[in-house]
Amino acid sequence: MPGKLSIDSYGKSNVRVTKVIRLPDRHELVELSVNVQLWGDFSRSFTHGDNASLIATDSMKNTVYVLAKTHPMDSPESFALSLADHFVTTYPHVRRARIAADQTSWRRIDVAGRPHPTAFESAGAGIRAGWGLAARDGPRSTGASISNLLLLKTTDSAFIGFIRDRYTTLPETTDRIFATEMSVNWTYESLDIDYDAAFTRIRTALLETFARHKSDAVQQTLFDMGQAALDTEPSINQIQIDMPNKHRVPFNFKPFGLEFDNDVYITTDAPSGRISATIERE
Amino acid sequence: MPGKLSIDSYGKSNVRVTKVIRLPDRHELVELSVNVQLWGDFSRSFTHGDNASLIATDSMKNTVYVLAKTHPMDSPESFALSLADHFVTTYPHVRRARIAADQTSWRRIDVAGRPHPTAFESAGAGIRAGWGLAARDGPRSTGASISNLLLLKTTDSAFIGFIRDRYTTLPETTDRIFATEMSVNWTYESLDIDYDAAFTRIRTALLETFARHKSDAVQQTLFDMGQAALDTEPSINQIQIDMPNKHRVPFNFKPFGLEFDNDVYITTDAPSGRISATIERE
Amino acid sequence: MPGKLSIDSYGKSNVRVTKVIRLPDRHELVELSVNVQLWGDFSRSFTHGDNASLIATDSMKNTVYVLAKTHPMDSPESFALSLADHFVTTYPHVRRARIAADQTSWRRIDVAGRPHPTAFESAGAGIRAGWGLAARDGPRSTGASISNLLLLKTTDSAFIGFIRDRYTTLPETTDRIFATEMSVNWTYESLDIDYDAAFTRIRTALLETFARHKSDAVQQTLFDMGQAALDTEPSINQIQIDMPNKHRVPFNFKPFGLEFDNDVYITTDAPSGRISATIERE
Amino acid sequence: MPGKLSIDSYGKSNVRVTKVIRLPDRHELVELSVNVQLWGDFSRSFTHGDNASLIATDSMKNTVYVLAKTHPMDSPESFALSLADHFVTTYPHVRRARIAADQTSWRRIDVAGRPHPTAFESAGAGIRAGWGLAARDGPRSTGASISNLLLLKTTDSAFIGFIRDRYTTLPETTDRIFATEMSVNWTYESLDIDYDAAFTRIRTALLETFARHKSDAVQQTLFDMGQAALDTEPSINQIQIDMPNKHRVPFNFKPFGLEFDNDVYITTDAPSGRISATIERE
Repeated sequence: MPGKLSIDSYGKSNVRVTKVIRLPDRHELVELSVNVQLWGDFSRSFTHGDNASLIATDSMKNTVYVLAKTHPMDSPESFALSLADHFVTTYPHVRRARIAADQTSWRRIDVAGRPHPTAFESAGAGIRAGWGLAARDGPRSTGASISNLLLLKTTDSAFIGFIRDRYTTLPETTDRIFATEMSVNWTYESLDIDYDAAFTRIRTALLETFARHKSDAVQQTLFDMGQAALDTEPSINQIQIDMPNKHRVPFNFKPFGLEFDNDVYITTDAPSGRISATIERE
Repeated sequence: MPGKLSIDSYGKSNVRVTKVIRLPDRHELVELSVNVQLWGDFSRSFTHGDNASLIATDSMKNTVYVLAKTHPMDSPESFALSLADHFVTTYPHVRRARIAADQTSWRRIDVAGRPHPTAFESAGAGIRAGWGLAARDGPRSTGASISNLLLLKTTDSAFIGFIRDRYTTLPETTDRIFATEMSVNWTYESLDIDYDAAFTRIRTALLETFARHKSDAVQQTLFDMGQAALDTEPSINQIQIDMPNKHRVPFNFKPFGLEFDNDVYITTDAPSGRISATIERE
Repeated sequence: MPGKLSIDSYGKSNVRVTKVIRLPDRHELVELSVNVQLWGDFSRSFTHGDNASLIATDSMKNTVYVLAKTHPMDSPESFALSLADHFVTTYPHVRRARIAADQTSWRRIDVAGRPHPTAFESAGAGIRAGWGLAARDGPRSTGASISNLLLLKTTDSAFIGFIRDRYTTLPETTDRIFATEMSVNWTYESLDIDYDAAFTRIRTALLETFARHKSDAVQQTLFDMGQAALDTEPSINQIQIDMPNKHRVPFNFKPFGLEFDNDVYITTDAPSGRISATIERE
Repeated sequence: MPGKLSIDSYGKSNVRVTKVIRLPDRHELVELSVNVQLWGDFSRSFTHGDNASLIATDSMKNTVYVLAKTHPMDSPESFALSLADHFVTTYPHVRRARIAADQTSWRRIDVAGRPHPTAFESAGAGIRAGWGLAARDGPRSTGASISNLLLLKTTDSAFIGFIRDRYTTLPETTDRIFATEMSVNWTYESLDIDYDAAFTRIRTALLETFARHKSDAVQQTLFDMGQAALDTEPSINQIQIDMPNKHRVPFNFKPFGLEFDNDVYITTDAPSGRISATIERE
């Protein structure tokens, strides 16, 4: 046969776990969707159907629930790292384990103006995920991400001075809507982190900069947001940001004897611009 | 040919409009996805391809944007009713127009603890929609709905005393997780309504009741929520509620020498219970 | 309290079942997603949390799997009707049961030009569903539907002669692309039906008419398709068809010194026209 | 400020184009969703909001439609490569362009047993995509992928001999359902390719091997499928395959006094196994 195995990994996707932590005055609720991915010496399963070194993915799923019982699940990052540690320490032939956990965003329902101790509603506001990576005899690391966070500013966004050639029909504008669905991820430089606090600082820096920035290009706003995150958070040295440009297109009122006054826009999904960059600490 | 036209309607779906209202101290942002549906004398288009009485759906789309310019868009209900009125008053052969508008949920970004005047993030928290119906020489009405609102309570939910027969394996429980994706809709009894205030009162009554209720069945909680809404809001006489039971299944810890302590659950999407009812004012 | 229960039902959604029928020369594969909905005397569960008359939705789920074992599952309609019969005959307080079953569409993988006896690939081509309804001491009925079937014709579609007024900017066209995502449903007049054969005849009549029709309006094509289905299939007297107009918009080549020659279109999803009608046998 | 730009790119996502090629006896239909991504000297847009070197993403969109007019669009790969070439040859500061194009899968409607010349229905069967990469003064390359292709075999799949430890509850089985949603991608070794023919050969080799393989592990089937593709197609030296294990779980009939006979399964989506590998020519 012509081929050889060059890279392989396997694992379990979308192990969904709900944990309730019953404190005296309130319940804490954590819901994660966990992904397990392992690298190691599994090649004979591929080449010979010999499964002697395979951890069944069903057993990985069981492991997530069993560890969820004893782990405080205080952050997706710490739970992910514990799981990654488990796999590399339990199985000598596992070289590397990467666990990622998407967290469902809940907030307490307000009842008569006070957060209820045991009832929750969806919080929207993008998806937080944390990940942990452990390598046998190697480094351990953690990181986090925000994805699917819709942001929109109604002013302070211009787009002028770009290339005008045969393919250009877009007019210049000094005041447009800037809407995006932000995805951001970063790696922590240390494992001695208060993950929730760091996450909140980074998220706040990103959003406040988005709100305040006088934008001359999506690119420029993205860069300033990344700089603000690095400026705020000493535990990261690098941040990767994707900010598609989800266009709001001025409606053409001319055929109706009216003028567009930066008031009524066509909301579109496709196509969208795609702007990505990694910003590093100097 | 064997058939005759018995019911017909047509319209335009998913006309997406963004409106920015530029006040001196802040901008208001409204994003709606509008659906137009008309009933009237359009039969020759079906039977003969004679389009003389057809309003092109592209023209309906234009109409949404043109009316968006002058309408205050203070609520999806009022905008929907204005559009419905427009169609029945502009075109004599339109018998009935129903407009529904789904509103994208935005909230202001907090900057240094204060809501920013021109920058927004997604608010999650379910979809609000409003609708308006106008009939030639007939009644006009409005209503609203909440959909896709995830709710979860970690306690105060039991399920006992149900039928046990050959098909029953579910154990009784006095303490389970109750999770749902609520959809609710209602019709207003008057057109002289502060729609935002009514919506907020109904939403609050539903959520506070969900949070507080000692549930013996999803059915019972649904009924109490509907009663609370009717009790709170004199402008509605009827409310229709769907509350699927999105199960959180106790993880079986027995094979691992552990016990389930109402702590770790399998999060599932399918199958789900489906519980629906309409509650009317007596 | 102010309210009374006016309408209620409950059931189980999305019970997903895979059945393999092991014939000597090949395996048959059936995958259904089953929805159960019951009406009956369940009011004390809503009003008092008294579940003595409740069939747990978990038991409904078990019932689907248990009946799947013995039923031939030769069509979604017959399986749905058997389930509906089961609920009204087993539980005296169930007045009515409606079961709907969406079928996943598989076809055999061709191996060396012949269909493989035990291996399958996704067939696409829309979703077939069947339903069965049984009422205590009342009628039993069945029906079927096709949904999400994408159809497109590149010519033989005009749109002229529609109303031109202040809101009209759409030019007339004698040759446009006609694309739709068809949904169709019907009820059978008898229970003595070869459901697969009837389904295929109706589907074929609809698609052949779509392909052949010289369309002067989506409405007209829809009506002719419905007539063709009634003409072909004596077991139905009525058919309901939704055919949104999924627009392909001519690209404006003028700014580039080129002409649109019915060749290159912008593919869009939103907004879309929505055209619906019910056609009945005269 | 603390940060510097380390990696950046931008482009346009989801430019959707429909092209009709009007031949004497039939129309050809091509629908693509095109993604453009450029690398080059755009840093001053990020760091200074100076857009002098920016090609507006709206201009990229226009370019897709303008090139669609003259290009034969005989394959997504060739169209993608032409677009990539265009960007690196037109703009001296563009170092690299990568274009990917997802193709909507249509097949002709059969009318009276013959494929209709101008009418089409959705073909399902996974998504074909092609890509082209061009670098200034550097290599040009193309490749293709299949994604979201559902495959299922009802027998010839075992899973035995895996690790049994504290976390293992899965029983061994010599006959299970093997269902997956395959994603595969590869790079061509030459640009002198009949892309459609190569695509069909690779797809056929993968599916026939899936159908015929006596599987002792998903891993083994994946490896054999990759080997078959390399064996069949000399123009590729490497293939990357993802085959999640979409479980069909035996229904537990014991509580109902029945036996599971490899007949009725619970169809599940989550969690799923995830098996990935790259197979290279030796």
